[in-house]
Amino acid sequence: MSVAPVRAGIVVTGTEVLTGRIADRNGPWVSERLAELGVEVAHIVVVADRPEDLESALRFMAAEGMDLIVTSGGLGPTADDLTAEIVARFAGRPLVLDGEMEEKIAAILRGFARRFRFDEEAVRAANRKQAMIPEGSLPLDPVGTAPGLVVPAGERVVIVLPGPPRELRPMWPRAIESRPVREVLARATPLLAYTVRMFGIPESEIAKSLREIEAGGVELGAVEITTCLRKGEIEIDVRYRAEAAPVADAVRAGLVDRHTRHLFSLDGETVDSQLAGLLRGRRLGLAESCSGGLLAARITKLPGASAYFAGSIVAYSNDAKGELLGVDPELIVNRGAVSPEVAEAMSRGALERFGADVAISITGIAGPDGGTEEKPVGYVCFDARLAEGASIARDPVIPGNRDDIRERSALVAMHLLRTLLGGDDAPL
Amino acid sequence: MSVAPVRAGIVVTGTEVLTGRIADRNGPWVSERLAELGVEVAHIVVVADRPEDLESALRFMAAEGMDLIVTSGGLGPTADDLTAEIVARFAGRPLVLDGEMEEKIAAILRGFARRFRFDEEAVRAANRKQAMIPEGSLPLDPVGTAPGLVVPAGERVVIVLPGPPRELRPMWPRAIESRPVREVLARATPLLAYTVRMFGIPESEIAKSLREIEAGGVELGAVEITTCLRKGEIEIDVRYRAEAAPVADAVRAGLVDRHTRHLFSLDGETVDSQLAGLLRGRRLGLAESCSGGLLAARITKLPGASAYFAGSIVAYSNDAKGELLGVDPELIVNRGAVSPEVAEAMSRGALERFGADVAISITGIAGPDGGTEEKPVGYVCFDARLAEGASIARDPVIPGNRDDIRERSALVAMHLLRTLLGGDDAPL
Repeated sequence: MSVAPVRAGIVVTGTEVLTGRIADRNGPWVSERLAELGVEVAHIVVVADRPEDLESALRFMAAEGMDLIVTSGGLGPTADDLTAEIVARFAGRPLVLDGEMEEKIAAILRGFARRFRFDEEAVRAANRKQAMIPEGSLPLDPVGTAPGLVVPAGERVVIVLPGPPRELRPMWPRAIESRPVREVLARATPLLAYTVRMFGIPESEIAKSLREIEAGGVELGAVEITTCLRKGEIEIDVRYRAEAAPVADAVRAGLVDRHTRHLFSLDGETVDSQLAGLLRGRRLGLAESCSGGLLAARITKLPGASAYFAGSIVAYSNDAKGELLGVDPELIVNRGAVSPEVAEAMSRGALERFGADVAISITGIAGPDGGTEEKPVGYVCFDARLAEGASIARDPVIPGNRDDIRERSALVAMHLLRTLLGGDDAPL
Repeated sequence: MSVAPVRAGIVVTGTEVLTGRIADRNGPWVSERLAELGVEVAHIVVVADRPEDLESALRFMAAEGMDLIVTSGGLGPTADDLTAEIVARFAGRPLVLDGEMEEKIAAILRGFARRFRFDEEAVRAANRKQAMIPEGSLPLDPVGTAPGLVVPAGERVVIVLPGPPRELRPMWPRAIESRPVREVLARATPLLAYTVRMFGIPESEIAKSLREIEAGGVELGAVEITTCLRKGEIEIDVRYRAEAAPVADAVRAGLVDRHTRHLFSLDGETVDSQLAGLLRGRRLGLAESCSGGLLAARITKLPGASAYFAGSIVAYSNDAKGELLGVDPELIVNRGAVSPEVAEAMSRGALERFGADVAISITGIAGPDGGTEEKPVGYVCFDARLAEGASIARDPVIPGNRDDIRERSALVAMHLLRTLLGGDDAPL
């Protein structure tokens, strides 16, 4: 029994999620947490706020022999929030009032009531409803107003969590520290993991390398390898139990040997974070055209970017390229706004206008219109440049639609800056 | 039988989706398409690439009496792509080679082979594997290299689609036009729908209005209303069968009456698209600080933006505000970089530097650091301005984390521009 994997199913409730109006952020998040704990997640089931459908999902998980079931959503105060009731029935436990929880929720609601005007009768009813828990279950203190639950249900345990991610996530550690859940998890072996990132190489090359590594005698079956194309980069996740560490190390070494030029992160660190480190003590200025501000937005996403980021001139019109970046209008006429020559003039302009010591420019054809045979949609010119002189220029044709081309342009620029500042070969 | 709703389940396969490494874009998309056709979607089940788990998900759907099952993923050429085989077993139909499909796939692969170097033996094997279809099923021509399938399975029909959204979506119309699927859909009543959008009002106000509308004698039970907070706006979706059209109309009229000031779209049109219309024949320049280029990125997301968008000066540093936008450094010292006065100077600078006839500025504290008691994190100053003189200024405190504040800043700016150009009251 102890060698069989511990298996879990996740049930996400919510009509808005089922109908695609909002994206489910809980299923994948809980799934990752469980994988880290060594639990094998078999299914994520999304159901509407229909009691029969939630009940049938729970029965399905039970029939499949899940050791752990995690639900999210349906714990609110309104009549269609039915998760606690249905899980109680599923576990064969009547709902009972938890007096202590009623008092805790009342205290939280008094806090809200001071700030908002509420219908008092409605508040009292909601309070009572949310304090009803399956007999013998373990309530988890609310992060918002809804308590979570750990409900033993025969051979399995159900963890009942609220729907809003900002309530679910802080509640998770409390759920897995509860005695019933700890007992289930004790039978699982936590997984170790590392993430390797590459840029500028097709996924098929990784598959080929893995085959070679295997042919060289490394038992790939002992580790779990997921290769995933992620916003233009390749992310390789390797998960393994402690005894398979030598295999995991051999896989990493094999990838490093074969892909030194394209491999930029051995520890999962993102290019954004690497670039932030490389920019420390410097001053960056941007000149963007087709990326339309996406590179600036990406760089300023990290807190503290103001320490090294001066700004970006998003020069969408040719006039703006001339007036704000000092690009010679003749050059635009003779070479075209999308040309290596204009890209160079733009990055020189950004260095000068921002008084920067590193700059990059992006000018390209994002489409859907504006392509020609010589310069098709997706043709983008980059020029990355240090005030002290070194530079890298590239002009690839980027595949995909308008969104893809714009986002990929910003990504290519991140990697060109990383290469320029880090001294690696440019992987393009 | 014809009054019972037609019900469907969706099975999404893919270890990367189950483990949260990539977000599922197929389940919600197919769910929306089915809802439009009047089909009630009961469950979306996400499973790993483990044959037993896919099979159990199919059996679950069958046990729940689904009329239609849609699968996505697992149609690729590799050994762990097992969907066709498992659906064949589920439907009790042996796999047979479809000669015509084999030829079609071969032709597609020859196209690839001209561009890439492939292992010929591997290609032949993949070709054969992908041309194996359940006997008596209907293959759907590949969009990439994988054919889809429509598989009659006893009382229900299984639609088997490839995983990449860019292959799945174009294949969908062919699937629903196939005879077996048409026969199922004939029993469903397509739903009518409209979407209303509001900005600058809490969700609880909509709930209150709906209660009032109901109290006024409108039978809300006859329509399906979903209210959803979506990136700072409220989206109200109303779905209804033809006979409930008078109720749906009464709901819309009731919302319009109560929320004229906050309601900006009666037909689902986005603020992005409305603003693009209002900007026709004009020239827009931006001055961004805390939004870091996000407003420019949002405006240039729409194709054709170059007709009215001159550019954005992302002036992150105080120096850049002075040198690139002409903001008086004294003003920054005396009032602070985040102040209505500096916001006004920035938008005047944008008008002038871009030779624009409409401009907006955003300067604020996105956090997590930099807040003070007087100017907390989330304090953002906006100044929207026409060259001919009219202007709107606002300085709200925007709630949320750094990402929320940055994105909401761009959204508020969109609505201020819409209001300035459209002449409505500013809903803030």
